Amino acid sequence: MSFRSLSFHALPGLPEVLPDMALGPLILDALAAANLALTADDTLLVCQKIVSKSEGRRVELSGVEPSVRARELATMCLKDARLVELVLRESTRVVRCVPNVLIVRHRLGFVVANAAIDQSNVPGGGEHALLLPKDPDASARDLREALRSAVGLAPAVIITDSFGRAWRQGVCGTAIGSAGIQALLDRRGETDREGRTLQVTQVAIADALAAAAALVMGEAAEGQPVVLARGVPPNLLIESAGAAALVRPPEQDLFQ
Amino acid sequence: MSFRSLSFHALPGLPEVLPDMALGPLILDALAAANLALTADDTLLVCQKIVSKSEGRRVELSGVEPSVRARELATMCLKDARLVELVLRESTRVVRCVPNVLIVRHRLGFVVANAAIDQSNVPGGGEHALLLPKDPDASARDLREALRSAVGLAPAVIITDSFGRAWRQGVCGTAIGSAGIQALLDRRGETDREGRTLQVTQVAIADALAAAAALVMGEAAEGQPVVLARGVPPNLLIESAGAAALVRPPEQDLFQ
Repeated sequence: MSFRSLSFHALPGLPEVLPDMALGPLILDALAAANLALTADDTLLVCQKIVSKSEGRRVELSGVEPSVRARELATMCLKDARLVELVLRESTRVVRCVPNVLIVRHRLGFVVANAAIDQSNVPGGGEHALLLPKDPDASARDLREALRSAVGLAPAVIITDSFGRAWRQGVCGTAIGSAGIQALLDRRGETDREGRTLQVTQVAIADALAAAAALVMGEAAEGQPVVLARGVPPNLLIESAGAAALVRPPEQDLFQ
Repeated sequence: MSFRSLSFHALPGLPEVLPDMALGPLILDALAAANLALTADDTLLVCQKIVSKSEGRRVELSGVEPSVRARELATMCLKDARLVELVLRESTRVVRCVPNVLIVRHRLGFVVANAAIDQSNVPGGGEHALLLPKDPDASARDLREALRSAVGLAPAVIITDSFGRAWRQGVCGTAIGSAGIQALLDRRGETDREGRTLQVTQVAIADALAAAAALVMGEAAEGQPVVLARGVPPNLLIESAGAAALVRPPEQDLFQ
């Protein structure tokens, strides 16, 4: 794949994103403020939160009526039954429900706590919840096309979130949507230095980029929701199946 | 944590690493060849393979006598019984054994295919296997101290490998050893923009750095086993428990 160097730059100065606010112009303003000139070989990594906000995925908990099942699970995991109701609506399966832990398979295939529903950094605090974008790969394509229309250049776009992992402590940035980049690189048939066929055949390119970008974004008050990455080899900057390709199909799940 | 930008640079020109060959001088030569002057705020990410080679962790398969259990498992996973024997010696538990898949809990706590034993890029090919370093956190500390002795500067050191994930396709770089860096950042008590306590409380700093660095290292013929990372905030460049802190204890395993 031939990376030589790779850099991640936080963009400053994004205002609070409101529903129906287009992200393209905000990002172009932030690039200008950072004196960064966009090129077609750049990759923009965008935190899920601002995509969800611009897509109006904020839900007022006061308007959510918990089902019987949500109430039962909420008793088991000690969470707000209205939040659990939203988690269930966003999920296809409950993986684990014990005190303070509710892990589900999200309808997009991610196995994640609370269906990746976010209650932090949302104005109004605990009475609101922010759901993932409806189709993050489509969100990434739309943003890429908006940038192409605005400036004639289409960088790769990766939408990121921070997920926990099965066997590892701490969260790590993860790609939930992408466009214009080979999110999952298939190296089957390539050989190593001694001519042996590679043991590792698929590389999670977009997840690795999301992991480093999430560090630069930060998680708290200093949050910078857009990061510009440079150095991704042009041969990876192609149309692909999007970040959906990074989801391991349930039938290949190592625990089924 | 306040990252502003983050960059990863591949070092060129490392020769084939042989047993008992010290990595410090090789890395300093490669830094000089790349015109990169080491600073105390740098992080060096080093591929497990060259650490294992320098520590003599290469095993000739012809000298391995498979146990009855190794032969049984080898029949189930369709692998070389001598390799399976080594996997068992390196592991505390078999997580999954089906055709072409043997996943174990490594004695260091990693849940990983084939106990992370590597058969590629080892001169001699399929008749040899390369085990993980005995204690990768100690390996990282030793390399850091060797560099401090040689040049009076002690960069952070992270030893990386590429592991698969439970629910995601493709491998991702992972930190298996570290020194001089807070591998797992605990943010409990911090608040977000609106003053809410953070939902995400632990961040896998070293794994995120390893993920991006592994892209720059490459997996095949173009492999560059050492990557210099710049931009890690100095407040994270402190002594810590090492990458062992990133292993989720078995009792917190989401599947037990």
